[in-house]
Amino acid sequence: MTSSSTDDKYKQRMQRKKEHIDKKIAEANEERGIIILITGNGKGKSTSGFGTVLRCVGHGLKAGVAQFIKGKWDCGERNILEKLGVDFHVMGTGFTWDTQNKELDTQAAQEVWQETRKMLSNPELTLVLLDELTYIARYGYIDTDEIIEALNNRPKMQSVIITGRGCPQPLTDIADTISEIKDVRHAYNSGVKAQKGIDW
Amino acid sequence: MTSSSTDDKYKQRMQRKKEHIDKKIAEANEERGIIILITGNGKGKSTSGFGTVLRCVGHGLKAGVAQFIKGKWDCGERNILEKLGVDFHVMGTGFTWDTQNKELDTQAAQEVWQETRKMLSNPELTLVLLDELTYIARYGYIDTDEIIEALNNRPKMQSVIITGRGCPQPLTDIADTISEIKDVRHAYNSGVKAQKGIDW
Repeated sequence: MTSSSTDDKYKQRMQRKKEHIDKKIAEANEERGIIILITGNGKGKSTSGFGTVLRCVGHGLKAGVAQFIKGKWDCGERNILEKLGVDFHVMGTGFTWDTQNKELDTQAAQEVWQETRKMLSNPELTLVLLDELTYIARYGYIDTDEIIEALNNRPKMQSVIITGRGCPQPLTDIADTISEIKDVRHAYNSGVKAQKGIDW
Repeated sequence: MTSSSTDDKYKQRMQRKKEHIDKKIAEANEERGIIILITGNGKGKSTSGFGTVLRCVGHGLKAGVAQFIKGKWDCGERNILEKLGVDFHVMGTGFTWDTQNKELDTQAAQEVWQETRKMLSNPELTLVLLDELTYIARYGYIDTDEIIEALNNRPKMQSVIITGRGCPQPLTDIADTISEIKDVRHAYNSGVKAQKGIDW
């Protein structure tokens, strides 16, 4: 095959791809905020949520974060995002397997949830990240129906990202976008120590 | 069941969980940088990479980014990360289906790759994000063996994140952690327009 026919083939392939993409862009014309669920056992759920918050504030838009479960560790993301004006609410009791106290965990979750409700009714926020909300719903710290009601009543243009494993089905049902992160391989299981700046 | 027996059960479950987690933490004691591959068709690959960069610089550590394929769009992540001192290299020609010119695409990829090589030999960088590198390898813009060699020779404590679909097998083989993001559902396919601050 001559070099110019290879080039032509490349050009034709990219032209077809462009037509396909342009068609899909033209078809997607409904303007509204969406609910994104990032679930599954693989690494990357919270970082994907925080990456989208970064993207959002990088465009000069406003975002809020509610961080359930985690919270006692020094949080790299929070150090920067709070300075950039991101509204940050953290459960702060640490992992449930550290506290081992259901009453305390429920109370801490409820406190963050009350702040979350305010964010979910604030039209100035383009994006609200509910990091590890799924566990809170699954363990019954907050009623799933109450979460769904707050989500359904949020401002029309507000998007919400929910992260965590094992999302209850009714909450899964109302998500517009669902990404399931499969754990194909994890360095941790080969004996590599979790690292600051990478794993937390 | 009485409330106190429920509490006991909760406490026992969390104690068992803690024992399991503590054991795994004790076993994972090798200290070195890792290669993380974030692949699959679902939404969240690049944002997960950028979220980890944010985490890293949030701890006061240094990171670098090479962004292949994308680059002409206003990039929310870049607006913030460059100001935070992140080393940023962008292909800048835009999508390959827009340029439709293999020679131009290859040249642009090679230019970013030369900068990438420098980052992959800089021990000051805790993390290097190679956003959408998989396409560059797959389309043959850069030789996969050359990429693997540069990765294998990087500083011991440096971690690398590679994002993109369809990663060539030899590059997949050297990854320590692999997350595959499955596209369970996507708002775009229900006609919702891509949004600034969420999708780009």
